[in-house]
Amino acid sequence: MTTISHQAPIDYLAVADELVDTFSLTAIERDIKGGTAKAERDLIRRSGLLALLVPKSFGGCGDTWLTVLEIVRRFARVDSSIAHLFGYHFLNLVTPHMYGTEEQKRRYYMETANKPLFWGNAFNPLDQRLVAVREGDRYYLSGTKRFCSGATDSDLLLVSAKHEEGNGPLIAVIPTRREGVNVLNDWDNMGQRQTDSGGIEFSRVPVELGEVLDTPGPIGTEFSKLRSSISQIILTHVYLGIAEGAFEQAKLYTASSARAWPASGVSSAAQDPYFLRHYGDMWVRLEAARVLVERAARDFQSAWEKEWGLTERERGECMMSIATAKVMTTQVGLDITSRMFEVMGSRATSSEYRYDRFWRNLRTHTLHDPVEYKLKELGNWALNGQFPQSSSFF
Amino acid sequence: MTTISHQAPIDYLAVADELVDTFSLTAIERDIKGGTAKAERDLIRRSGLLALLVPKSFGGCGDTWLTVLEIVRRFARVDSSIAHLFGYHFLNLVTPHMYGTEEQKRRYYMETANKPLFWGNAFNPLDQRLVAVREGDRYYLSGTKRFCSGATDSDLLLVSAKHEEGNGPLIAVIPTRREGVNVLNDWDNMGQRQTDSGGIEFSRVPVELGEVLDTPGPIGTEFSKLRSSISQIILTHVYLGIAEGAFEQAKLYTASSARAWPASGVSSAAQDPYFLRHYGDMWVRLEAARVLVERAARDFQSAWEKEWGLTERERGECMMSIATAKVMTTQVGLDITSRMFEVMGSRATSSEYRYDRFWRNLRTHTLHDPVEYKLKELGNWALNGQFPQSSSFF
Amino acid sequence: MTTISHQAPIDYLAVADELVDTFSLTAIERDIKGGTAKAERDLIRRSGLLALLVPKSFGGCGDTWLTVLEIVRRFARVDSSIAHLFGYHFLNLVTPHMYGTEEQKRRYYMETANKPLFWGNAFNPLDQRLVAVREGDRYYLSGTKRFCSGATDSDLLLVSAKHEEGNGPLIAVIPTRREGVNVLNDWDNMGQRQTDSGGIEFSRVPVELGEVLDTPGPIGTEFSKLRSSISQIILTHVYLGIAEGAFEQAKLYTASSARAWPASGVSSAAQDPYFLRHYGDMWVRLEAARVLVERAARDFQSAWEKEWGLTERERGECMMSIATAKVMTTQVGLDITSRMFEVMGSRATSSEYRYDRFWRNLRTHTLHDPVEYKLKELGNWALNGQFPQSSSFF
Amino acid sequence: MTTISHQAPIDYLAVADELVDTFSLTAIERDIKGGTAKAERDLIRRSGLLALLVPKSFGGCGDTWLTVLEIVRRFARVDSSIAHLFGYHFLNLVTPHMYGTEEQKRRYYMETANKPLFWGNAFNPLDQRLVAVREGDRYYLSGTKRFCSGATDSDLLLVSAKHEEGNGPLIAVIPTRREGVNVLNDWDNMGQRQTDSGGIEFSRVPVELGEVLDTPGPIGTEFSKLRSSISQIILTHVYLGIAEGAFEQAKLYTASSARAWPASGVSSAAQDPYFLRHYGDMWVRLEAARVLVERAARDFQSAWEKEWGLTERERGECMMSIATAKVMTTQVGLDITSRMFEVMGSRATSSEYRYDRFWRNLRTHTLHDPVEYKLKELGNWALNGQFPQSSSFF
Repeated sequence: MTTISHQAPIDYLAVADELVDTFSLTAIERDIKGGTAKAERDLIRRSGLLALLVPKSFGGCGDTWLTVLEIVRRFARVDSSIAHLFGYHFLNLVTPHMYGTEEQKRRYYMETANKPLFWGNAFNPLDQRLVAVREGDRYYLSGTKRFCSGATDSDLLLVSAKHEEGNGPLIAVIPTRREGVNVLNDWDNMGQRQTDSGGIEFSRVPVELGEVLDTPGPIGTEFSKLRSSISQIILTHVYLGIAEGAFEQAKLYTASSARAWPASGVSSAAQDPYFLRHYGDMWVRLEAARVLVERAARDFQSAWEKEWGLTERERGECMMSIATAKVMTTQVGLDITSRMFEVMGSRATSSEYRYDRFWRNLRTHTLHDPVEYKLKELGNWALNGQFPQSSSFF
Repeated sequence: MTTISHQAPIDYLAVADELVDTFSLTAIERDIKGGTAKAERDLIRRSGLLALLVPKSFGGCGDTWLTVLEIVRRFARVDSSIAHLFGYHFLNLVTPHMYGTEEQKRRYYMETANKPLFWGNAFNPLDQRLVAVREGDRYYLSGTKRFCSGATDSDLLLVSAKHEEGNGPLIAVIPTRREGVNVLNDWDNMGQRQTDSGGIEFSRVPVELGEVLDTPGPIGTEFSKLRSSISQIILTHVYLGIAEGAFEQAKLYTASSARAWPASGVSSAAQDPYFLRHYGDMWVRLEAARVLVERAARDFQSAWEKEWGLTERERGECMMSIATAKVMTTQVGLDITSRMFEVMGSRATSSEYRYDRFWRNLRTHTLHDPVEYKLKELGNWALNGQFPQSSSFF
Repeated sequence: MTTISHQAPIDYLAVADELVDTFSLTAIERDIKGGTAKAERDLIRRSGLLALLVPKSFGGCGDTWLTVLEIVRRFARVDSSIAHLFGYHFLNLVTPHMYGTEEQKRRYYMETANKPLFWGNAFNPLDQRLVAVREGDRYYLSGTKRFCSGATDSDLLLVSAKHEEGNGPLIAVIPTRREGVNVLNDWDNMGQRQTDSGGIEFSRVPVELGEVLDTPGPIGTEFSKLRSSISQIILTHVYLGIAEGAFEQAKLYTASSARAWPASGVSSAAQDPYFLRHYGDMWVRLEAARVLVERAARDFQSAWEKEWGLTERERGECMMSIATAKVMTTQVGLDITSRMFEVMGSRATSSEYRYDRFWRNLRTHTLHDPVEYKLKELGNWALNGQFPQSSSFF
Repeated sequence: MTTISHQAPIDYLAVADELVDTFSLTAIERDIKGGTAKAERDLIRRSGLLALLVPKSFGGCGDTWLTVLEIVRRFARVDSSIAHLFGYHFLNLVTPHMYGTEEQKRRYYMETANKPLFWGNAFNPLDQRLVAVREGDRYYLSGTKRFCSGATDSDLLLVSAKHEEGNGPLIAVIPTRREGVNVLNDWDNMGQRQTDSGGIEFSRVPVELGEVLDTPGPIGTEFSKLRSSISQIILTHVYLGIAEGAFEQAKLYTASSARAWPASGVSSAAQDPYFLRHYGDMWVRLEAARVLVERAARDFQSAWEKEWGLTERERGECMMSIATAKVMTTQVGLDITSRMFEVMGSRATSSEYRYDRFWRNLRTHTLHDPVEYKLKELGNWALNGQFPQSSSFF
């Protein structure tokens, strides 16, 4: 296992590719088991990649989102659960940078780079059952959150709770092992089975004021609001990676194992005119998804670099670029992960291949937020020039 | 459990509906386990439905394919594995009628009605590894067949083997428990998990001449050739049933459990304009599938009733009607079983519901023969007025 | 020219087929010219078909909607403008039966059968610019109506106006040649070019009380409300006929004139594997449209026959059946009228064929009311069991 | 009218934009008339843009294909006939560079820049009716060519003829006004009505040896073979421009003229949830087309710049990039040019707008070569890593 040392220039993608090879060996088995990918998470910890985005001045790698997202995509080709956890680690990690003070930014960047720390979340904005109560110099969190991806085996949790009184959420960072935090490990879904996206129960979990991210908070600046776009651009890369992985597996199978249909008049499935047409059509769509995703990644990196100078219009255009890519990868991916079977045939449904996992993973993950409302907002922008209201989903 | 007695007119659909209710209780659990649905198969045995198609003169119910196919469809709404086994029982049962002598027809109809017997097959024409050797008054079968749906726990097997010398297949009926027959029970696939569609090994399995169906044999008459259409019309009903089951589950979930999307401006998911549009679009497609399937069933029953008087043209038109319905149910079903999640949302991916089984079952089963070649043959007919060559898939 | 005599049983479809042959000879030329199909309208007048639906007791043919709709479909295969005019003649003709008194019903049925009369309309409910003012025993109509299909060369006009005071529309029948009625002949559109669907100006046009259809009026009974369904079922047949006509032309061209693509490896375009696939796919869709339309026609005829006994539920189910067929024919027709060129090739774009008229006609006519709202209402019914509010479009 | 002077750096796109504005004023009228866009062609001649690609050393502008293609796209938004003629001018102009000697390259570049000259063609490789006979130092051309885009009003013609004896085509450049050349002006099609793509009759038209392009000829080098890609990349930009023009017109109409549907519950069509969804979906597809086309243009320019050093692999990848973009623009464009009416409504079918021209133009032009065979070749590349055989269509 190559690990990152800070003595020499490092090819992080090469480091990631080694992990990809390792993850792929057990991906089928772990899809069956579900649960926590503890061994794989530890490999990531040891690889040094968790500090990719931490600026060098804080002891990190000082790399860009482009590298992070590229790795998310490569992971997703063989293991979209880990891809999701890896991407969301960075979403959580940069939140103090976006919502918090300069001091909080420094603190969490440095801690993450030094240990390294793996971040999880209890952030799902649609679940309003976690309540924060102020008592003196502390808040106390009580209640439940669902869909807490990456919480199990995490070191830090980004938490969002409802203020008992007043508006807006309380957002804070706490150690996952703090007393009163009970990660339920109850994620058992048809896809994305190792994302540990289950629930967490909080029983009077204390939060120090210094852990609360409220300056500028989630909607204080355009840069803060950009956080929703991080979530979206990560998902987009996960979806694309799944589609690419499915396409690659289909090609390998057609070339090695598929049989020519008796009525086809050709001796090899790889020369079947309808198989070729399917491959051509899937290719065109996949290429469309790729170029849109790559453009969105560049647009996002550019917005990120503008930091506090980011304007509403710049953020809006970045959102629209990401939304465009997300819709396309959703549609293309769902098509390919189902259509791949047409160019493989019946025998490819054997459980030994578990090729259905591509569709199950994508189908599960693409429900994160409805594609129909993305289309509506894109239409409102294309037609009326209006950007969507800032929310957790744009 | 209602069972069929022959004293009074019987509502076989009501009998079937009771089985549907029973099967639905354990469908999720059995999808997880795979293997043989022994208890359910025995319920079917006891129900009397296995004799549905046996003429009354031979001790059977004397009902029509319309009833059989309707039951296949209803079973498939909750359990498409059992639907497949049930439908294919009749496909195998009527083969002596189509391929054999009057004596063989009588013998197998009567035996089936009396016991009752459950039929399985070792018939897959794409697998040429099972060989028949003539020695004196017997044939001996040696080799392997894959995709032998319903073989496990069957009483009789319809077998197709390659003659060691000479052309055409040897087709015969043998007891599943005959010495030398080794049902492998190795079916473990992503869908249709309880169809027992694994392999069978044959080690010098003797076949008496009276068990061989060669007068008129598989291509001796138009009526004999109609057997391929039986397979296709059964599959079509399985596919439709799966789509209907998925649609029904989606409706129940949307109405009871789905949440309104925050940006939708409506208080209930069931009023979301995009959800309603999805439901309307799925409805239109489902209705198209239904009317085509119902027409195809009538066309098939009509061809069946013509028996030995069936003409090439009549059989051809029946094939085309069935192929049209099969393509449509394939396309509609794959769409609905994936799209259903859009109108349910993320929480519906929980393993407790196992809603992905609809897609897994349909995706697996629709690979039986490629939809592209169905389209080609339909096009050749629509454009050039030519029917496809007779084969196991038309 | 066969004309209908009342001495012998008459095959109205044969009469219609002769008209189809005649219309087809000049369809291209008349698509170029636009304007009024005066000669063709007169042929229809002379054919006796305008009295098809008039009960025998009132001197008509006493035939059913099934025959009317079948003729609309056949006309539409070669000339969808005339198909529309012919269908809408009956929509207008039966309005006194649905909205008016027994006396009005008798009067207009008898007049139509005797002359015969061709009905047009000034009824478009979306255009609220025509106003009715009561003065003594008369109303006076002033203002404008757009989209008055069939007004030119009509004998009677069904008119809908807004009451100057009070709610609901005034609906009446007036002679087209009444003083103050100015049919503008200003219809010049990209498709349906001979439907005379232009505007009419009304300048103090008097309306006698006996010409007003207000007992029971448009929403007085379920049977009255069924009028919207007549419009929809006629449109559905026009759309289907266009799609069938396009498909038929494409087949003729492929078989006679299309060239094999050099890379296809076949000697005839009619054997190209991708052409055959296109034909197969178009066939499946067309068949789906056909069976849904034929079912909808039967459902409508059945609702019509229930007349004043029609229940809300029966009308609702009939509406849904028609809406399903209408959505399908819209989608299938737009696909076929554009895709037909793929199986004909570049040379088929020559103006001599004017094959684009199928798409132009269908594209124009399918905008009558938005397919998206049909889908929404179908979804509301499928999901929530609710029928749409009665309107001019359901 | 801005014209290009060579004293100062010139913004050719600004020059083109002025032409776009001018062309748009009469686009509807000229779509009705068809025939030759003489005035517009002369404006292009005077603009200096015909020399865009001529190297500065030969007296031209020395600009790149990127500029040419961008102008093709902008022209196509308002007038796709002129866009086609303009693009194909360059396809013909560079042929001596690719197929001919250094001397021929110089001669035709210089002549074109000096006059300027407008190029047309008689090149259609599918039409084999034009025959070249050698007599002494000359060839004589006799016969007919169909689909000779841009021939009318051209100054030079690129001609392809069949050698009476021997293999391969004779390719030559001749003045359009040479004796024996009879441009038929018989193009009258449903779309692309001003491309003058009619036939030419040749009656013993003499060709000097110095006019024949046979060193290296059409398949002598990879760079020569790149000519097919020029045709394809031009078409791709025409298609994209048409789609963009249609989308733009739809937006203007929806915003200014469309009416809210009564059942929509919104006061403006521009807020209709289904209209917005349509716009969003069209947007996503259009964006996909755009990014693929822009990538293909860059890939092509890069291949062009490699000139005689271009490798088979580099050309192959360039072809695949263009084919991907061409398939996507075809599919997206056909969708948008038909769907645009859904977001405009019935009144937008009025002949005054002639909005159907977008579909007619695109439908006509996308038949240049079948999209199905593009998909097949793309599939063969994606699956088997094989590039298509060189032909006039790859």
